Amino acid sequence: MPTYHVEMMEGRTVEQKKKLVEEITRVSVEILGGSPESVNILITDIKRENWATGGTLWTERS
Amino acid sequence: MPTYHVEMMEGRTVEQKKKLVEEITRVSVEILGGSPESVNILITDIKRENWATGGTLWTERS
Amino acid sequence: MPTYHVEMMEGRTVEQKKKLVEEITRVSVEILGGSPESVNILITDIKRENWATGGTLWTERS
Amino acid sequence: MPTYHVEMMEGRTVEQKKKLVEEITRVSVEILGGSPESVNILITDIKRENWATGGTLWTERS
Amino acid sequence: MPTYHVEMMEGRTVEQKKKLVEEITRVSVEILGGSPESVNILITDIKRENWATGGTLWTERS
Amino acid sequence: MPTYHVEMMEGRTVEQKKKLVEEITRVSVEILGGSPESVNILITDIKRENWATGGTLWTERS
Repeated sequence: MPTYHVEMMEGRTVEQKKKLVEEITRVSVEILGGSPESVNILITDIKRENWATGGTLWTERS
Repeated sequence: MPTYHVEMMEGRTVEQKKKLVEEITRVSVEILGGSPESVNILITDIKRENWATGGTLWTERS
Repeated sequence: MPTYHVEMMEGRTVEQKKKLVEEITRVSVEILGGSPESVNILITDIKRENWATGGTLWTERS
Repeated sequence: MPTYHVEMMEGRTVEQKKKLVEEITRVSVEILGGSPESVNILITDIKRENWATGGTLWTERS
Repeated sequence: MPTYHVEMMEGRTVEQKKKLVEEITRVSVEILGGSPESVNILITDIKRENWATGGTLWTERS
Repeated sequence: MPTYHVEMMEGRTVEQKKKLVEEITRVSVEILGGSPESVNILITDIKRENWATGGTLWTERS
């Protein structure tokens, strides 16, 4: 039943996403129990102009 | 005042979205009270490469 | 597959929640398709001191 | 440590976003304490066909 | 119309929250336009056992 | 930089949460890169009366 939302900077490959959801599902089932089919993971790709740290958009950070 | 966030796989038509927000607003007002104008609904279209169930992205599921 | 997050002011009864999730699931399946079992709804009860409109917390609004 | 998610209708300029994250970070540090670097802000641009108020999508509202 | 979600560690006073929502609403209207009444802010108080940075829950960090 | 939100049914122990955030941070850094300190994880414990699947609250499901 657990549902994961992952917010990450855009630019990751589908290969990275495939590996990530496989691994998160595995550790989730191992630690929290339940079946793999009950684990949902939703990824949000964030554009650099939409994420700020320290008051500065990541398009402005070097 | 209630605020609804709907995450759905991309590909639904504007007609489906129009009907959905109309119906959700109606049942919300009926059951929770308040005015229709106080109901906000935000839809997020999720790409198949960004949603995983059972450890597998929906681009990989048949 | 659609997932609904509902944010509402705290104080609604379990009866209201039961009716709301039943109706939202029904209209979701009718309009978007899919099976009822694929619809997940998560409710968040918000305390009045944690919701502001117009710059004022709802504990301060009459 | 505070994390802000801002949902706004699409169409705001990068200049507006720059100013907004600068100001929110400033007031956050002033009022809640902590360092600016600990403040994260994530913006979501919502398409008008994905936001409804009063049961009507904003593409339909004049 | 903008909607803000603020996640912060629990323990802030109502006075801090009052001031924060007042200021965020003010800068939002100044920079993005719209009326104050169209700005909604929802605060989530996170327990220290529910927030981790660097792989460690904040209950474990000194 | 990735931020994870985990929604799970209430009742998990702090030991499970400790292990979960440790493992998610580890696989995140392995697959996406970045430093462990840049990974934030926020857990939301959902009450059974606030989660529905198939139109039925989990308090009603056996």
